[in-house]
Amino acid sequence: MRLFIEVISLATSHERELVDVTDQARQLVHRSGVEEGICALYAHGATAALMIQENDDPNIGTDVVRCLDGLIPKGGWLHDRIDGNGAAHIQAGIVGPNETIPIRDGRLDLSTWQNIFFCELDGPRRRRTIAVTIIGT
Amino acid sequence: MRLFIEVISLATSHERELVDVTDQARQLVHRSGVEEGICALYAHGATAALMIQENDDPNIGTDVVRCLDGLIPKGGWLHDRIDGNGAAHIQAGIVGPNETIPIRDGRLDLSTWQNIFFCELDGPRRRRTIAVTIIGT
Amino acid sequence: MRLFIEVISLATSHERELVDVTDQARQLVHRSGVEEGICALYAHGATAALMIQENDDPNIGTDVVRCLDGLIPKGGWLHDRIDGNGAAHIQAGIVGPNETIPIRDGRLDLSTWQNIFFCELDGPRRRRTIAVTIIGT
Repeated sequence: MRLFIEVISLATSHERELVDVTDQARQLVHRSGVEEGICALYAHGATAALMIQENDDPNIGTDVVRCLDGLIPKGGWLHDRIDGNGAAHIQAGIVGPNETIPIRDGRLDLSTWQNIFFCELDGPRRRRTIAVTIIGT
Repeated sequence: MRLFIEVISLATSHERELVDVTDQARQLVHRSGVEEGICALYAHGATAALMIQENDDPNIGTDVVRCLDGLIPKGGWLHDRIDGNGAAHIQAGIVGPNETIPIRDGRLDLSTWQNIFFCELDGPRRRRTIAVTIIGT
Repeated sequence: MRLFIEVISLATSHERELVDVTDQARQLVHRSGVEEGICALYAHGATAALMIQENDDPNIGTDVVRCLDGLIPKGGWLHDRIDGNGAAHIQAGIVGPNETIPIRDGRLDLSTWQNIFFCELDGPRRRRTIAVTIIGT
């Protein structure tokens, strides 16, 4: 069994957006040399999250952000007395910071329309990071 | 440390439903011979998800689907211009495609009322798949 | 590769609350001796969940519970005919029982403001448990 660890770094350019990080994850799986196992991704930051989402329509990120904003709107949270981003924290907690993806035949075993997205919920930020842990044979 | 990989295949029979896949997962854990470790499950398909849910009341799946439909209703999403299933993609992303379940004493360490459900959000489909990765001793 | 398994036990004191379990998880990572790898946490109980959330403002737990109650209110679910806690089951399923956190340099690789919270959604309970599986080198 082999262990490979790395970090994906990215900048975000909007207050709220989904950023596709699949290519970076694919390259790390390739570099790891692992053929069968798991790739565990974890987004740092209490206003960030990871989501597996449709990869072909650039509008889907806008839909996701609009949906989260409708369900958990800004304003009125107790935490807003601190720094005004209560909604971003709650959204990040419910979406969650981790995705564990299978590796098969040396590749991420995503289905045709699934990609990995970093959810920026309180940006833009110059540096966001995702810890990557690959375990397998 | 041992690695065991397999695929659970299933057909779904409704547009939207929860399908219990606990028995298939249990059989794979048994076949793997792993006594202590993790069983990482990953649902393929950008309109599918996995959920740990109550296992005794057949109505709970109906409740979950009704809840998701109330929170994230069909219609009005930008993605609907493509193929009309924007709500299913957003729901799948928020529920998420993976569950990582502990293995103890050769068995899935679910609690009494927890089972593993495949969430079909845009069916029926003749073949849905879940990648299973078991790691342990 | 090393495997370390343990259980975190806790009591909850309210019907609905978030309980910080980061210290217990940190101690187990220390005891495991694992320097690089993953810590997979899994909450038992079909009305419990785990959430990574902001760790500095004690109000954030109240915000999360209020948010979940607004989105998925008590009453009117089919499951309520059984034991009246349908909303707690649905909330637990959507938030989800597992978090897989990277271990780096012998420590949980949480970011500055991220802690691990047990979500009690149908308490108080005298004994709730979280299965902990640590895999790494």
